[in-house]
Amino acid sequence: MNPPKSEVTPKHAPGENQPGDESPGRENQTMLPELSGNSPSPLSKSTAFDRWLMRTMLNQAGNPEIEVMLWDRSVISTSPVPPRARAVIHNRSTLYKMLIDPSLYFGDGYAQGLIEVEGGLVAFNEAIDHCTHAVDTKHFYRDGVRSSLEWLKRNTIDAARSNIHHHYDIGNDFYQLWLDEQLAYTCAYFADPEMTLEEAQIAKMDHVCRKVGLKSGDTVVEAGCGWGALALHMARYYGAKVRAFNISREQLVYARDRAQREGLSQQVEFVEDDWRNITGNYDAFVSVGMLEHVGLKNYEQLGEVISHCLNPQGRGLIHSIGCNSPRTLDSWTTRRIFPGAHVPSLSEMMQIFEPHKFSVLDVENLRLHYAVTLEHWLQRYEQHVDEVSEMFDEKFIRTWRLYLSASVAAFRSGSLQLFQVVFANGENNKIPWTRANLYAEEQAQSRQGEQT
Amino acid sequence: MNPPKSEVTPKHAPGENQPGDESPGRENQTMLPELSGNSPSPLSKSTAFDRWLMRTMLNQAGNPEIEVMLWDRSVISTSPVPPRARAVIHNRSTLYKMLIDPSLYFGDGYAQGLIEVEGGLVAFNEAIDHCTHAVDTKHFYRDGVRSSLEWLKRNTIDAARSNIHHHYDIGNDFYQLWLDEQLAYTCAYFADPEMTLEEAQIAKMDHVCRKVGLKSGDTVVEAGCGWGALALHMARYYGAKVRAFNISREQLVYARDRAQREGLSQQVEFVEDDWRNITGNYDAFVSVGMLEHVGLKNYEQLGEVISHCLNPQGRGLIHSIGCNSPRTLDSWTTRRIFPGAHVPSLSEMMQIFEPHKFSVLDVENLRLHYAVTLEHWLQRYEQHVDEVSEMFDEKFIRTWRLYLSASVAAFRSGSLQLFQVVFANGENNKIPWTRANLYAEEQAQSRQGEQT
Repeated sequence: MNPPKSEVTPKHAPGENQPGDESPGRENQTMLPELSGNSPSPLSKSTAFDRWLMRTMLNQAGNPEIEVMLWDRSVISTSPVPPRARAVIHNRSTLYKMLIDPSLYFGDGYAQGLIEVEGGLVAFNEAIDHCTHAVDTKHFYRDGVRSSLEWLKRNTIDAARSNIHHHYDIGNDFYQLWLDEQLAYTCAYFADPEMTLEEAQIAKMDHVCRKVGLKSGDTVVEAGCGWGALALHMARYYGAKVRAFNISREQLVYARDRAQREGLSQQVEFVEDDWRNITGNYDAFVSVGMLEHVGLKNYEQLGEVISHCLNPQGRGLIHSIGCNSPRTLDSWTTRRIFPGAHVPSLSEMMQIFEPHKFSVLDVENLRLHYAVTLEHWLQRYEQHVDEVSEMFDEKFIRTWRLYLSASVAAFRSGSLQLFQVVFANGENNKIPWTRANLYAEEQAQSRQGEQT
Repeated sequence: MNPPKSEVTPKHAPGENQPGDESPGRENQTMLPELSGNSPSPLSKSTAFDRWLMRTMLNQAGNPEIEVMLWDRSVISTSPVPPRARAVIHNRSTLYKMLIDPSLYFGDGYAQGLIEVEGGLVAFNEAIDHCTHAVDTKHFYRDGVRSSLEWLKRNTIDAARSNIHHHYDIGNDFYQLWLDEQLAYTCAYFADPEMTLEEAQIAKMDHVCRKVGLKSGDTVVEAGCGWGALALHMARYYGAKVRAFNISREQLVYARDRAQREGLSQQVEFVEDDWRNITGNYDAFVSVGMLEHVGLKNYEQLGEVISHCLNPQGRGLIHSIGCNSPRTLDSWTTRRIFPGAHVPSLSEMMQIFEPHKFSVLDVENLRLHYAVTLEHWLQRYEQHVDEVSEMFDEKFIRTWRLYLSASVAAFRSGSLQLFQVVFANGENNKIPWTRANLYAEEQAQSRQGEQT
């Protein structure tokens, strides 16, 4: 799919005056078309200092293949090759704020219409991510320190509830506009790249069920169940008895209602509680897309909860966004999109398993599948943007457009990964001999799923 | 296969005198047959203190399901259930040495015939491993500290050469007695559990080649190539051009000779050098069973070597013995069998990949395959023990019997794991879409391999 090329006209008036600035403005020739509209006031000249600041910021970012147009149409780029996309910054205060926290104030500036992007939001973010990747490599230890600071983040039960509410309780109607029909808000598995989003979400659920070796009569606990799609799938197609935990009330209302409608209430219990309060013993532990909200300092506790609830012969699966080396998410994402979120590297994920001597059986990285999943979501989001605008204001629309676009870019560029980790108790010898069974009937299963 | 039930008669005379010790000797009823031969001298009574020490040691080990018979036939066990196997300690000095370092002096005592084991060496070691597993769980942080001490281990190029010489340069004839016909001295892959060892070693080579997506004309560097089986397989069946590094001279002589005989000298270059000196650029990096000798403190350097030699679109695979949480190998193994060896947990392995932002694509744990591989090796070793005795003395024979038996037990019990990790550069999007291709022609490929 193509990311959006044209942006919404900002409500905020661009431009700030800087009398006495006579510097020549344009610094680089641009390959991109001139911005139409938002003509700057003749008084709002950028200073040499403004442009030096912008150049320095681009340099710090690793000289991404972008250019920046300031409010007086002066264009700055440090890219060694023709830029792929352009940001237009409409006033000086936005530029200065970006000095303090580029990620946060770029995001906020974009949301408020004080920044526009030409050439595609995805392409713009890809260009940034590409460079950050190279720059960060030199700062592995700084990243390590930042990652350690993550430990200070408090994801207490109360904080977690508030964080989850922020993102997931903004209306099921909204998510129904652009997710698949079962509302699976996690990476799909395109067993065949031609699958529809609906098919790929079902294929993901089957992939997870096969990885934990689910069979009829098995008991399952699911930590963080979203709108219940996986729990209901395990019950309906695998005959499992599922207890599914979630602290998002809106999601639970939907999930319980669906279980009722589909006659699965006896097989699936949706529990409004935190993963820390999981009790009972189960043949399988699954958690798809919750670890991002757990917080690094709680990983060992999560391992302890699993070690108490997983039967000796049981198997577990954790599906989570991750990254290639320890890092913190950018501040815009953790403040505006996912408060309290952390995406772990594999070494960090091992803090769940290693203290309890779980045996990691299988790790699969589905990064490119998440890029495609997000492309579907972004496309559907844009198709339904008029309906979104009846629910939310322009700032919300732009925030979510940036979030989805930046996420496509992050998975395409390798800034983010998607790990599925399968594990078992360290002394459990009833583990799968090979992984061939995951692939034996992949096509057949996905066809079966299609009929649902 | 059955582990050996009867042990070699020790050359060392058992027993030490302890005049004045009148304590009654037997403390537990035993389920095992009495030891024949090695009758203790009537003067060599064990003291109450001896027996208290032995009980304390068993208690410290987590009360394994074994019993210990001392030199005066007194039997000690702290197992809550009938013991599975029995160790017979023939004199006091061996018992006292075991206080200092149980692993080292048990192994040495066994090698010297001062300790015998009844009920099977594998079963005995499994009983110990089972308990160590439980005990160690409580000492995760102590293990962490021990693991940090590993960093002090020096695996310099010279030390590495000496360490490798110790184990691998003791005669190709010896290894030919009990390895498969291609001398693959690493975990096999029993795609079908009924495979012979020969078939499973070929299946492993195919599994590795498919995981790195090998195709005709690809260039490959192999770090630690043993007797050359994988390098030659990649050249012959996949049309790859391979540079294979090794510092074991005996192995290289054999590998070069085989390449010559099979007309593959143009396609495979065997280089006598350390992995640190790898130069060039390659489409694939593979290392099967070398990481155990690299030493934890050199992992980041290994990552750096890989980052320099792997093409941007290339893929790598590291196959290594590992463990579920950071630990050091027992002192007997690191002193008598594999000097300088370290088996990493997955979080430790990430020290190779994360500083260089490699993307881990796939981790597979083949623990049970190594248990079966080792059962084959132990069985063949026992079948050829008469030929071994023409090459080496009794102490050597017993040392290797213990090493192979303890290894079977370690993989069966979950003390050791076998990880295959596939990785690529973080920005490489030419990665496999799914893993289905690994399993599509598994049977066909292994049959093809069988004809070699």
